[in-house]
Amino acid sequence: MVRPVHHDWGGNMRRKVYVEGSRPDLRVPFAEVELTGDNPPVRLYDTSGPGSDPEVGLPPLRGPWIAARGDVAPVAGGGTPLAGRRPTQLAYARAGVVTDEMEFVAIREGVDPSVVREEIAAGRAVLPANVNHPESEPMIIGSRFLVKVNANIGTSAVTSSIAEEVDKLTWATQWGADTVMDLSTGKRIHETREAIIRNSAVPIGTVPIYQALEKVDGDPVKLSWEIFRETVIEQAEQGVDYMTVHAGVLLPYVPLAVNRVTGIVSRGGSIMAAWCLAHHRENFLYENFAELCEILARYDVTFSLGDGLRPGSIADANDEAQFAELRTLGELTHVAWEHDVQVMIEGPGHVPMHKIKENVDLQQELCAGAPFYTLGPLTTDIAPAYDHITSAIGAAMIGMFGTAMLCYVTPKEHLGLPDRDDVKAGVIAYKIAAHAADLAKGHPGAQAWDDALSKARFEFRWEDQFNLALDPDTARAYHDATLPAAPAKTA
Amino acid sequence: MVRPVHHDWGGNMRRKVYVEGSRPDLRVPFAEVELTGDNPPVRLYDTSGPGSDPEVGLPPLRGPWIAARGDVAPVAGGGTPLAGRRPTQLAYARAGVVTDEMEFVAIREGVDPSVVREEIAAGRAVLPANVNHPESEPMIIGSRFLVKVNANIGTSAVTSSIAEEVDKLTWATQWGADTVMDLSTGKRIHETREAIIRNSAVPIGTVPIYQALEKVDGDPVKLSWEIFRETVIEQAEQGVDYMTVHAGVLLPYVPLAVNRVTGIVSRGGSIMAAWCLAHHRENFLYENFAELCEILARYDVTFSLGDGLRPGSIADANDEAQFAELRTLGELTHVAWEHDVQVMIEGPGHVPMHKIKENVDLQQELCAGAPFYTLGPLTTDIAPAYDHITSAIGAAMIGMFGTAMLCYVTPKEHLGLPDRDDVKAGVIAYKIAAHAADLAKGHPGAQAWDDALSKARFEFRWEDQFNLALDPDTARAYHDATLPAAPAKTA
Repeated sequence: MVRPVHHDWGGNMRRKVYVEGSRPDLRVPFAEVELTGDNPPVRLYDTSGPGSDPEVGLPPLRGPWIAARGDVAPVAGGGTPLAGRRPTQLAYARAGVVTDEMEFVAIREGVDPSVVREEIAAGRAVLPANVNHPESEPMIIGSRFLVKVNANIGTSAVTSSIAEEVDKLTWATQWGADTVMDLSTGKRIHETREAIIRNSAVPIGTVPIYQALEKVDGDPVKLSWEIFRETVIEQAEQGVDYMTVHAGVLLPYVPLAVNRVTGIVSRGGSIMAAWCLAHHRENFLYENFAELCEILARYDVTFSLGDGLRPGSIADANDEAQFAELRTLGELTHVAWEHDVQVMIEGPGHVPMHKIKENVDLQQELCAGAPFYTLGPLTTDIAPAYDHITSAIGAAMIGMFGTAMLCYVTPKEHLGLPDRDDVKAGVIAYKIAAHAADLAKGHPGAQAWDDALSKARFEFRWEDQFNLALDPDTARAYHDATLPAAPAKTA
Repeated sequence: MVRPVHHDWGGNMRRKVYVEGSRPDLRVPFAEVELTGDNPPVRLYDTSGPGSDPEVGLPPLRGPWIAARGDVAPVAGGGTPLAGRRPTQLAYARAGVVTDEMEFVAIREGVDPSVVREEIAAGRAVLPANVNHPESEPMIIGSRFLVKVNANIGTSAVTSSIAEEVDKLTWATQWGADTVMDLSTGKRIHETREAIIRNSAVPIGTVPIYQALEKVDGDPVKLSWEIFRETVIEQAEQGVDYMTVHAGVLLPYVPLAVNRVTGIVSRGGSIMAAWCLAHHRENFLYENFAELCEILARYDVTFSLGDGLRPGSIADANDEAQFAELRTLGELTHVAWEHDVQVMIEGPGHVPMHKIKENVDLQQELCAGAPFYTLGPLTTDIAPAYDHITSAIGAAMIGMFGTAMLCYVTPKEHLGLPDRDDVKAGVIAYKIAAHAADLAKGHPGAQAWDDALSKARFEFRWEDQFNLALDPDTARAYHDATLPAAPAKTA
């Protein structure tokens, strides 16, 4: 059964349309909202994908584009990158080539393709697109483009099935998630990821150390570069588009976290810290970073350099542990670029409002403008069960200051694993934050959405207002016939 | 039946305590959270009141203090202010007197009483405390103090009963509302307000023009200064602590709103604009402002100078209509101060993030530091049903920049009237915003709450974490046994 492209929002008033590019198979999706009266339709960025039968997966939209570039030898179930090639969007951008993916993105963002190519070439934007994930609809992450939102999903050892996780993927992208990270743990990591990638029209990110840890029965001390490398290759071959790698958690930095209120809260960070301390050796991800770059370059996997020492509380924000790691991430950014590998940088976490800007400014300086990708940040620690809100505040602000992608936080943060409702609540809160940031940055065209909705509101065109809403279902459900019928319309 | 002071949060681990001041009846409430192990208890600001039987009302805590000052002749059911007296906290502060109310507030905020007196004397803070609302527990609104949150409630002509509104009052203050505005419309305005004031331990605000409009059958053109004056006196005698007055909506400003996307969206603003246009005369509230001050001074009613021309959409933010009115509010602030009347200034509304700071800076400059009291602002218009979130972002930021009180927005904003769940959602979102602002302002002691909760989190003291949470009920309900048992604790 093919999933519906969109559920029935306002009948036919909100529907998917495609804008065709320079080749007939380059079709860029938008959600078009038709309005009543003389009001022109509004086109919204659309992440919901074409809809798939979970058993079959999505059609390989990018397959012909990848094949045409000749970097990959087609084999059953994917491709094998040719030895010695670095078929990354960064390499092509640097070579002056506007790829089909870049053209797709340019149409999607409403900018000239040359802008896309230049931003990628300069390392200020990434276009995560593994050659083995041809099902993805290209998107871009960079401060000159629309602020993006990532949603985390994933099975745990205890609960949830693969079907449930694929459903969460579809659900998250329906509400606007631009990328999805599969943070599955437990025994069925590989097959869960396979189901997710084959059904995903958005880039998929992972944290390979989680799977590597499963292979050594959960004991961080038993980890090794060899096990990690094997895991990365396995995931790259499956089509993972970006990978979080905690290569900046260096042995000398670990003691800097000792006197914190909340120590090391990143799971990957604590795994690597435990390994470093147990062996009293430098982080093997740091030591083998160049080889890792060569692997990622072959598949065009983008680095998401993890902030393993990110603060886990207001008290620990912007401390020496955090910024020491950030300096190392800056160093690694240049190494990745030397290998034509795309890079983004992960950021905190928990940060009070007055310390948010410093995070972006320092990251941009130390990492030479590489895109920043932050978790929240939460602006206070006092509201467990509402951390989608404590962090939407921080996310909106950090987006305004130049962060390119915001990793969502759900109401269950710190308390449990998110269910379907939590995924929606997190995505919606973060779409709000991202759009508020787009407005504050003066992103061309961003305000047209607000203006169309506000005009509909002022003219009591309720259905137009609902169809334009970020969440038409809930807006419609909340509309109450008891609302005074005709408020203020004097001027 | 006496309402419970607090519902049973964590058994006896979170309970009300009182700190006694210089007289035995000056007892300041706190919520004290007892923690396990060697961790010292945490005292939180408490707005929940002593609990009342709705049929009887609260005891008159401030009765003896007011009587001792001799400004009021006690009569049955309240007091009659003596002619010629201006028994306002501002007048006392200017005379160098630290009133019992000021001492109460100083203990509540953890500052020296002289700071409270100085801030009130300078007009930088207000202590709304009508001599006829002796049931209130004194609180202060000013940028040097904790950021406060207001919740709006009120019956409409169509729905809800008085008992329901009293219940919403209790519910709102239980979750942390510092003041409550009764925006009732319909026929039973007076008795609804009576029930609310008699049961309220927090200051009550109103918009008297709403009741005045009921008296002229809803036709703004029939309004007059006489009807308004009579209404203000009626409400002042009942004990309303602060009143929104749209005296800055001047006739020449109305045309400035004509080309807006959303015209005039403030109900009071549109009422006054309609009156001005119909009569082609200047706003009678502006024309009679000095007499209005004399009335408010007798009861110590605080002005909340309304922003009738506040923007109703992102498109209209920071425009000439809005700032023209703000200049007039600055002029009126000085007139009120000449009459020893306390003043705060209302602010927008809908403002994109990059235009928020300008609002506070201009208000502080034009109104000589009088406290700013803003509705949100919403930072985007695209998310009806989530405007508690779109506006919590703006509220946190405007609080950081110096706004003293934040008027909540509920998920039903623009869609319907808030029910009990909406009231809670709005208050919680705004307590988050206010506390995030306290942290960002470096308010002394604010971070202790975050630190205690984060320490409990890091040490897996789940019950301590729940009891410290802004909403212990939901945090406890969301806690999920499937959460991995022992995350990152390396450092």
